[in-house]
Amino acid sequence: MDLTNEERQLLQSLRSLHGKLRDNTYTTYRRINPFYEDLFDWKERGRYWSGRDSITIYNSTSIAGQVEIGEHTWIGPFCSLDGTAGIRIGSHCSLSVGTQILTHDTVSWCLSGGKQPYEYAPVSIGDRCFIGSHAVILKGVSIGDACVIGAGAVVTSDVPSGTIVAGVPARRIGKTTVDADSRVQLVMDDVPAT
Amino acid sequence: MDLTNEERQLLQSLRSLHGKLRDNTYTTYRRINPFYEDLFDWKERGRYWSGRDSITIYNSTSIAGQVEIGEHTWIGPFCSLDGTAGIRIGSHCSLSVGTQILTHDTVSWCLSGGKQPYEYAPVSIGDRCFIGSHAVILKGVSIGDACVIGAGAVVTSDVPSGTIVAGVPARRIGKTTVDADSRVQLVMDDVPAT
Amino acid sequence: MDLTNEERQLLQSLRSLHGKLRDNTYTTYRRINPFYEDLFDWKERGRYWSGRDSITIYNSTSIAGQVEIGEHTWIGPFCSLDGTAGIRIGSHCSLSVGTQILTHDTVSWCLSGGKQPYEYAPVSIGDRCFIGSHAVILKGVSIGDACVIGAGAVVTSDVPSGTIVAGVPARRIGKTTVDADSRVQLVMDDVPAT
Repeated sequence: MDLTNEERQLLQSLRSLHGKLRDNTYTTYRRINPFYEDLFDWKERGRYWSGRDSITIYNSTSIAGQVEIGEHTWIGPFCSLDGTAGIRIGSHCSLSVGTQILTHDTVSWCLSGGKQPYEYAPVSIGDRCFIGSHAVILKGVSIGDACVIGAGAVVTSDVPSGTIVAGVPARRIGKTTVDADSRVQLVMDDVPAT
Repeated sequence: MDLTNEERQLLQSLRSLHGKLRDNTYTTYRRINPFYEDLFDWKERGRYWSGRDSITIYNSTSIAGQVEIGEHTWIGPFCSLDGTAGIRIGSHCSLSVGTQILTHDTVSWCLSGGKQPYEYAPVSIGDRCFIGSHAVILKGVSIGDACVIGAGAVVTSDVPSGTIVAGVPARRIGKTTVDADSRVQLVMDDVPAT
Repeated sequence: MDLTNEERQLLQSLRSLHGKLRDNTYTTYRRINPFYEDLFDWKERGRYWSGRDSITIYNSTSIAGQVEIGEHTWIGPFCSLDGTAGIRIGSHCSLSVGTQILTHDTVSWCLSGGKQPYEYAPVSIGDRCFIGSHAVILKGVSIGDACVIGAGAVVTSDVPSGTIVAGVPARRIGKTTVDADSRVQLVMDDVPAT
């Protein structure tokens, strides 16, 4: 490969820096991260977006538009929070790896060969919600408080507070209860065997 | 952490550059991107691969092999277009975040402990198709024109033009119509309540 | 954008290095990678984590905690192997793009507003397993040898050796057989037409 001296030196320095950061992360956390996650601070990123100290946002996650995020909410890697039409997320939520929240789509734009506009609708998520890995929340959806969205769920309609949903599309499979002592129960609905 | 002066300076410069690029993206688009998406240009990447000016390809997306991409097609982040056996994608398509298109698999290789070869088959997608977030299109699949592939769908068999599919595995749930004035309708099939 | 000379030079050098690495990857493999995947070596990363030469781990994949990985196992991009409670993965496995393996969850933590602890349970995967793109394997799951986990599957319960599962949640759809000559068959269960 025909690199200039400067490019070759940069490549070498990036690789040696990567090695040192990786060693440090491994020694401290027994963990290896993508290079870009070792370069930047997840809490600093949460603060940058939200002004709050308690929010985690991984570097590989994109956030756009109007996106409000409550205290102690954790947003993992590979998420997209497309707030072009507005997203509100409450406190103490976990948005697991790869959560996608969409407030627009290009369905009509595509089908019409670019002649129809994008379509928009806001999304809201209450407090104390767990969003499983790779869940997709489509435009216009409201999710209440204390909900569980299963891994891989595609949420196409509203989810009332205290509900557990799962599947593609997401269906109710149970409810959550939290008592005065903060004890949590997941109460699954009876379902016919399949 | 035991960094050399050079590594420490590079780390510092990467962080300050990241901060400036992030400020610029935030001010211009009210958006925060992964660092690597702020470094490079999505249209330039589309041009590099396809020779066309109208194609967007995010930096986190990989493309390999024979992959033809039509005009005005948008390819978001975290996609893989594995064209080892060939992929054709038409014009005015959206490949939403995390779309996976596969033209090979290692099923037999794994099961046989490395004794059987990889298996291959091409994929094609027509014009004006919307592919939802995290959809996976398996090897050998042909998708016609003006189709909608739902978010999270796993497409295991062919999809005729004008069809809406969704689910794991993807099943037909309706059809698309576009009239002479480019008005779009999504006509959902009757389905028994579940 | 108000960059210092040093930042501007770094940006320029990163872009020119990116261009050269991309050209090299394209010429050698007819492929374009994310910038960070062109910087680092996938086999070196496998060796760093596991001490073995035959393991591939993409840079965008995170690994944490106790994660044992067998010989010749391939781990693609955008995966998370959360081994906080321990993960064992056998030999000759493919973990396709975006595979998520979880050994903890924050469901009770979220629902209780941070008053309940995280919950943990280990995961194991046998030898010669194929894990499809975007599959999610939840905490506590054991997968035997020679299994196929379909793309997009969410695995919530144990999978016996020689089983094919798919869907959200994952259900058995067939079995795998491998004869003495390493010939592989996927034998699908009869399922009622839907």
